[in-house]
Amino acid sequence: MLTKADIVGRYLPNHLVFGEQAEAFAPSNIALCKYWGKRDKVLNLPVNSSLSVSLAHLGSHTQIRPSSSGKDEVFLNGKSLPLEQAFAKKVVSFVDLFRRDQVLPLVVDTRNNIPTAAGLASSASGFAALTLALNRFFSLDLEDTVLSVFARMGSGSASRSIYSGFVEWQMGQQADGMDSHGIPIPVFWPDLCIGLVKVSTGQKAVDSRSGMQRTIDTAHLYGSWPAQAAGDLEKLHAALQSQDFEALGATAEHNAMSMHATMIASWPPLVYWKPESLMAMQKVWQLREAGIPVYFTMDAGPNLKLLFQQKHQALLEAEFSGLEVVTPFAVD
Amino acid sequence: MLTKADIVGRYLPNHLVFGEQAEAFAPSNIALCKYWGKRDKVLNLPVNSSLSVSLAHLGSHTQIRPSSSGKDEVFLNGKSLPLEQAFAKKVVSFVDLFRRDQVLPLVVDTRNNIPTAAGLASSASGFAALTLALNRFFSLDLEDTVLSVFARMGSGSASRSIYSGFVEWQMGQQADGMDSHGIPIPVFWPDLCIGLVKVSTGQKAVDSRSGMQRTIDTAHLYGSWPAQAAGDLEKLHAALQSQDFEALGATAEHNAMSMHATMIASWPPLVYWKPESLMAMQKVWQLREAGIPVYFTMDAGPNLKLLFQQKHQALLEAEFSGLEVVTPFAVD
Repeated sequence: MLTKADIVGRYLPNHLVFGEQAEAFAPSNIALCKYWGKRDKVLNLPVNSSLSVSLAHLGSHTQIRPSSSGKDEVFLNGKSLPLEQAFAKKVVSFVDLFRRDQVLPLVVDTRNNIPTAAGLASSASGFAALTLALNRFFSLDLEDTVLSVFARMGSGSASRSIYSGFVEWQMGQQADGMDSHGIPIPVFWPDLCIGLVKVSTGQKAVDSRSGMQRTIDTAHLYGSWPAQAAGDLEKLHAALQSQDFEALGATAEHNAMSMHATMIASWPPLVYWKPESLMAMQKVWQLREAGIPVYFTMDAGPNLKLLFQQKHQALLEAEFSGLEVVTPFAVD
Repeated sequence: MLTKADIVGRYLPNHLVFGEQAEAFAPSNIALCKYWGKRDKVLNLPVNSSLSVSLAHLGSHTQIRPSSSGKDEVFLNGKSLPLEQAFAKKVVSFVDLFRRDQVLPLVVDTRNNIPTAAGLASSASGFAALTLALNRFFSLDLEDTVLSVFARMGSGSASRSIYSGFVEWQMGQQADGMDSHGIPIPVFWPDLCIGLVKVSTGQKAVDSRSGMQRTIDTAHLYGSWPAQAAGDLEKLHAALQSQDFEALGATAEHNAMSMHATMIASWPPLVYWKPESLMAMQKVWQLREAGIPVYFTMDAGPNLKLLFQQKHQALLEAEFSGLEVVTPFAVD
């Protein structure tokens, strides 16, 4: 059975060299076809391919430097984390994949500029930025696809945050997962807007990793998910090629609702929706009936992410108070 | 292709005789394993077998008598319905299956004693009572299984309302549907309570018949539903035999949530839940975490039907204001 260390080890020199410091940025991403289910829990190999759009300048900045205190230090948004805290632990184990037995205490300093109110996952951009920063710090000079493989082993959807724009995470077939990584899709869609609707910023009762597992273990309906996701992926590619916004939005919404359906069909039921989520959905559907092409997607949480075209931004900002709008392809 | 008239015709004498009037009662029923999807839309033959409990004295009383006005008359809860109204039309077409070309204007007078606030379907008890009344009015003296077949052709779940107590509607295999009817399950469960939680009494945006069709046509996840329902049916039979309340409740809730999941995975999404439905679900889950064995089921609408044991009735009445409690096996 392959471990993450086996995979990373293949790409490391016998003796690591490192500089004074290195830093990197990786964007957050919103999946239009969701990653939901692992075929390999150790390497984070997915049951289905997924497709996302990266959120331009919203994401994680990570800096790595040698620690002068003689032990590892993990900072998140300027705050030092106790090393036994869950995120700090994951970061240190990930760094260990590269550092191995070498005595080299490090400082990993991550800052997310994602509006915390928006309910966006930071682990995707966090592990992508950490991978990119490690690549620089140790002068590994690895290819993007390899970096995407490594990022995936930190957090599945981080494989997509290695790139900007639209990205497909190809599920791959190999046992070592070297063919399971992001691939950028060369489509430019300047008037595409993503609107973050804040429903709740509280801690989720069930994290995505456990939710995914409960779904696979208990939801009979999950049996139909891989075929659904494969079909949606094809439809999304077609919509991207023809720049068909309504097909893109409808497919993304149907895919997200189908993923939530597999959660709802789990036992005990996994319902991430809050009453306010339902109210926001109803508003989207009413606007659509009134002729406004607006769609939504949702991850394992109660918040909605709207998909719309720039010409409807003012209208949607008026309908959804506090809407945070991101334009993934905007040229500033 | 067989029609309903072909099927009913097989059981009719050459010349119908009838008396002065006939009446019958049939109970409403709550499915613990849901009927969701038709394999034959004309005869209402289901994709899966289902299992319900009848609601004792709550249901429909139907009286049939010759009309003195020279034309059919349909009364619902004492109000005369215009014959072009949807329910009246369905009733008259159903009566036509028996009356055929005979000139025999009738009065069909139906009274439901189901609390209208409870959001219970009345078509199941309505078509069962109508079938039983027609059987008496025309002195057909048909067996219960045949009556169940006929009732099913009026409204699928009416096949179960021919009986009291627990009833399985066996899906059957035959093209004419003569093996697709209710079968009573000889289990007596006196402390079983059903609590009707009123969320909304408004008209549904999408009726169950259309909802079922949209699900089959557009929800990929529906592909896994028949196997789920078959598994749940087995679990329910086992729970009934061992009088295992928690297994009964958990299976019923999982089955209902899985049915709703197939709706949610439809396109456009079919979400019958209202914010208040979600709040009631959350309350049930919180009570369960606190050690109270209470479960729920839901049909194609926003209302919850709680399942619990008599010893918890007072507690649940305090938690859910306006809770209407039915005891299907109570001896008055």
